[in-house]
Amino acid sequence: MNSFGRLFKISIFGESHGPCVGIVIDGCPAGLPLTPADFAADLARRTSGRPGTTARREADAPSILSGLFEGSTTGAPVVILFENRDTDSRAYESFRHFPRPGQADFVAFHKHGGFNDYRGGGTFSGRLTTGLVAAGVIAKRLIHPAVVEAVLVEAGGSTDVEKAVNAAVKADDSVGGIVECLTRGLPVGLGEPFFDSLESLLGHLMFSIPGIKGVEFGAGFAGSRMRGSEYNDVIISAAGETATNNAGGINGGITNGNRLFFRVAVRPTASIARSQPTIDLRTGQRGEVQAAGRHDACFALRVPVIVEAACAIVVADLMLLEQRIPRIKR
Amino acid sequence: MNSFGRLFKISIFGESHGPCVGIVIDGCPAGLPLTPADFAADLARRTSGRPGTTARREADAPSILSGLFEGSTTGAPVVILFENRDTDSRAYESFRHFPRPGQADFVAFHKHGGFNDYRGGGTFSGRLTTGLVAAGVIAKRLIHPAVVEAVLVEAGGSTDVEKAVNAAVKADDSVGGIVECLTRGLPVGLGEPFFDSLESLLGHLMFSIPGIKGVEFGAGFAGSRMRGSEYNDVIISAAGETATNNAGGINGGITNGNRLFFRVAVRPTASIARSQPTIDLRTGQRGEVQAAGRHDACFALRVPVIVEAACAIVVADLMLLEQRIPRIKR
Amino acid sequence: MNSFGRLFKISIFGESHGPCVGIVIDGCPAGLPLTPADFAADLARRTSGRPGTTARREADAPSILSGLFEGSTTGAPVVILFENRDTDSRAYESFRHFPRPGQADFVAFHKHGGFNDYRGGGTFSGRLTTGLVAAGVIAKRLIHPAVVEAVLVEAGGSTDVEKAVNAAVKADDSVGGIVECLTRGLPVGLGEPFFDSLESLLGHLMFSIPGIKGVEFGAGFAGSRMRGSEYNDVIISAAGETATNNAGGINGGITNGNRLFFRVAVRPTASIARSQPTIDLRTGQRGEVQAAGRHDACFALRVPVIVEAACAIVVADLMLLEQRIPRIKR
Amino acid sequence: MNSFGRLFKISIFGESHGPCVGIVIDGCPAGLPLTPADFAADLARRTSGRPGTTARREADAPSILSGLFEGSTTGAPVVILFENRDTDSRAYESFRHFPRPGQADFVAFHKHGGFNDYRGGGTFSGRLTTGLVAAGVIAKRLIHPAVVEAVLVEAGGSTDVEKAVNAAVKADDSVGGIVECLTRGLPVGLGEPFFDSLESLLGHLMFSIPGIKGVEFGAGFAGSRMRGSEYNDVIISAAGETATNNAGGINGGITNGNRLFFRVAVRPTASIARSQPTIDLRTGQRGEVQAAGRHDACFALRVPVIVEAACAIVVADLMLLEQRIPRIKR
Repeated sequence: MNSFGRLFKISIFGESHGPCVGIVIDGCPAGLPLTPADFAADLARRTSGRPGTTARREADAPSILSGLFEGSTTGAPVVILFENRDTDSRAYESFRHFPRPGQADFVAFHKHGGFNDYRGGGTFSGRLTTGLVAAGVIAKRLIHPAVVEAVLVEAGGSTDVEKAVNAAVKADDSVGGIVECLTRGLPVGLGEPFFDSLESLLGHLMFSIPGIKGVEFGAGFAGSRMRGSEYNDVIISAAGETATNNAGGINGGITNGNRLFFRVAVRPTASIARSQPTIDLRTGQRGEVQAAGRHDACFALRVPVIVEAACAIVVADLMLLEQRIPRIKR
Repeated sequence: MNSFGRLFKISIFGESHGPCVGIVIDGCPAGLPLTPADFAADLARRTSGRPGTTARREADAPSILSGLFEGSTTGAPVVILFENRDTDSRAYESFRHFPRPGQADFVAFHKHGGFNDYRGGGTFSGRLTTGLVAAGVIAKRLIHPAVVEAVLVEAGGSTDVEKAVNAAVKADDSVGGIVECLTRGLPVGLGEPFFDSLESLLGHLMFSIPGIKGVEFGAGFAGSRMRGSEYNDVIISAAGETATNNAGGINGGITNGNRLFFRVAVRPTASIARSQPTIDLRTGQRGEVQAAGRHDACFALRVPVIVEAACAIVVADLMLLEQRIPRIKR
Repeated sequence: MNSFGRLFKISIFGESHGPCVGIVIDGCPAGLPLTPADFAADLARRTSGRPGTTARREADAPSILSGLFEGSTTGAPVVILFENRDTDSRAYESFRHFPRPGQADFVAFHKHGGFNDYRGGGTFSGRLTTGLVAAGVIAKRLIHPAVVEAVLVEAGGSTDVEKAVNAAVKADDSVGGIVECLTRGLPVGLGEPFFDSLESLLGHLMFSIPGIKGVEFGAGFAGSRMRGSEYNDVIISAAGETATNNAGGINGGITNGNRLFFRVAVRPTASIARSQPTIDLRTGQRGEVQAAGRHDACFALRVPVIVEAACAIVVADLMLLEQRIPRIKR
Repeated sequence: MNSFGRLFKISIFGESHGPCVGIVIDGCPAGLPLTPADFAADLARRTSGRPGTTARREADAPSILSGLFEGSTTGAPVVILFENRDTDSRAYESFRHFPRPGQADFVAFHKHGGFNDYRGGGTFSGRLTTGLVAAGVIAKRLIHPAVVEAVLVEAGGSTDVEKAVNAAVKADDSVGGIVECLTRGLPVGLGEPFFDSLESLLGHLMFSIPGIKGVEFGAGFAGSRMRGSEYNDVIISAAGETATNNAGGINGGITNGNRLFFRVAVRPTASIARSQPTIDLRTGQRGEVQAAGRHDACFALRVPVIVEAACAIVVADLMLLEQRIPRIKR
């Protein structure tokens, strides 16, 4: 389904080249002050316009259609809409029947019996993360004073991100990257053993972001190569502080009082400005496709604010569950 | 919550040193032949008794309490119970108030107001994965002829698993490892974009397994260092076969006709036969704790069959959703 | 939460005097032909304009924002929006702090800490059923050739509905009524024992319609006064036909092959054109309130099409679960 | 599915003639003192042994398998099991292929492809309500000082319940009845508009109880015949007290500070000691069946404690959601 969360529940909708994309946030507590301007900073971080991002320009001006009254949330579902304006679907006509490698074209066609909106990736488009970022703005408010911060620490295997992206652009190619996310100020006790472990919930939502192909907490894969005596985080205070943080702030699926830390691997952008072999969906014959349209050479540049949003959404949900977000009265 | 799944829904319960552990499987179709013996092979793979695993010996004989009649599932919830017999809780008394580093002791105490069953990790114990393995046996039947296979490819950073484990045992220490999971024979179309992406669901359930701290699909973290032209899997047949499988068989969150492939990172066992510093939960004063009890030097040895089970459970759920599992009539 | 359903899942949003009301339908299969005109007939049945209904006039023109492409559903979430145009909120100012008896004013104020949008009932307004009716149009298509039909059989205790309504209007008063709903053509096997019984799901959704205070299946309350020998429906054919239908087409929570039949009790409209005693929310002092605004003397007149929609939504969900709705391929 | 609830979530399992019936309670807060003896009084009210109830005698001794430690709940899932001992399945053999009128035999056979456990109604049996009653005992503790009380006010259409039941027994027939349920001491604010209205949740769970065919809140069906001026409950205090209680303590789906009141209609017992016509499931030919086995002449006698349990379960869930149940610390 296109929804996620138990008490702070989000549902996304829309298509890349349809009238809009948007999000429903059900369970947002009443009394949170909110204006469209509050979304500007985070939406700007997600948007395009930098080297390495697509030429498509969307204003990303949020319309709040529901759940807001006299400047505060009401407790009713908050609906935020973003109109699509700069859509040029002609470029996509050429690959209606020629699925682009690494894209969802092939699976969307088969899953939905050929009725999928293929323009710009339709409902599979990264454009739907606009709503996630908007929900993240609200979630970040709710979890305050806890603070989430994500950064792109590596692109195309290099820590000199700018250089790597420029090189890819020049080569008509694309690169991926690695995003690190750190959250400070969380209480002990968020998450549960097994199916609602914090790793499970964060992993779930991180892997929902298009192009994320790896998630690791704390020392992660490198930690699997340590000895236990080296890996174990020794508890040094009653508040749960530890000498090291190889577990990424989570034990038994639950926040342990340390900083929450994880990393995500972002695949290189699938659409590249080169001709690639493929097959014809109608005949199964081999063909060629060039991902015209407008694309990012490194969409990983736009991922940190989405990762932050997703992290804040999971944390807000768990803080509501643990009764850690006080109710507001007028 | 302690449940997972939409149409093939599992709920686990029990504690390490309580009367039993078990699982409820709701949504198992009627007409599947099933006997307790069907569980033996997979349970044996999960169990202890090999070098590097705990000295605790449990028969792991499943009792099927519900949902079975005349040798077939009935469509009602299937409940499978495993009695705990070889429990020796005395060893745990010494660290009731001294949380072991890297364990859930500290968070369990704080989350549940001091009422948690601390013996052997209580409800946080890896022993609860017995139920997962049992559900996996049923799920594997349902998804047939698709086949899941997981193996431990690395322990303590070495591909010579046995050697690495023995070295850890000798050093009174522990090691982790890396498990690879491969599934053949899946139809195109399992999963959805965003929140029910196959990566999201598999990531969710993998991170529910105690000690899993990293998950990556296909080329994963290494893929984030490739160029797009190198990473993209070129489609070479109408069935979705591709020249490479860097995406791990998933595009847009959905199976693409290739083999599903992912890797998980298993942390080193937290309990080691050495004294480790900690704090006193009552006073906050520093102290020492030695994880007596009986433990694995490398519980990663037991993880492959659990990963297989979790993978089969996710796949079975999605195949039911996509109406890929035919109904049986007598 | 503001959502309902497992496979055909609806989420409603909006307020009576906000920018719009609307619905998200997640899980609508791909390939269903759909145009805005398809909604006209049912929306007209829900709308006002007849004697006994409010003077508020809304065009109720649906905007389909998502999930539709080239005239067919795509498998992505369908979002349908209805703008609010004929809103006059001045009338509501007078009872911002004087809750109208029988309305949600008092509980909304307390539940949401005074931040609720009180204008026209806000998110509690019957106007949100517009989305339900729209979802019902789609659901009715899906369950075809099964057909749902609901009628108002009684108003103010009389089967002469028109007369009863006119009398209430003259008396500056209001009346309720009883709606009967009959569904033909259902397969055997929809529903489950206990928590997903068809009575549970239908009861759940019927009681979600504002003003519904009673639901009974088949002989219902009258059936509780029969003897078993009289009540039992004797099975007379292999298809499940029975000599009588006291069970309303449901045994053990599951459709039995007969016609599904139930009745709902609709309370009289709370808002009446008379002054009524109440209290001041700020001081707790007694006061008076007159429900100005524009209201129905008998909103039960508008309920049948909502009941039909709700019934079709439940049935569509269960038919998808039972794999009774074939997939469409282009 | 066989589960219900969001934060206080119950899952039932078992069959009438299988090894046991039971319940999983997920989300029960830690720190609640609990012993098997606490269940005795309510289980005794559900049990048989009075005139008008079945001759089957079950000890109904609860085994608590999980979630209890040192006499208190731990926060882990609570599993309660009831062994089946007094099972005599021979009587059921005769109608394996001859569905009893008014029972689930016919639908169970068709829904589960003939693999259903038909003995004693299998998973459709009223015996599964034993677990509901057990969960109700815990829920009642949680919602304290709110108190739920249900009584059978009518049997076979008469308020002289005993007489009506005796007459039915003599006539080899059965009767139904009407149960009223009243809850005192609820806070304002439980429930939500639309899909999680208190009427929806209570209606859902009430209609899950086998044999319940009608539910009405406050004045219910009779209220649909009142005028608004008569029906509206005038608010007379800042705490929400009203002059009348025609709404049954609920406005806009939410508790309004009054006593919660509803009524449920219980159909007559389906199994009667007479021969009834039916069809042969194998051939579709007409036949005869006599519901041997052991049955209640008026199972409505056992319903009040089940209704109380169901009501307390819904209320506990909502009180947890509204943060009305304080956390316990040792």
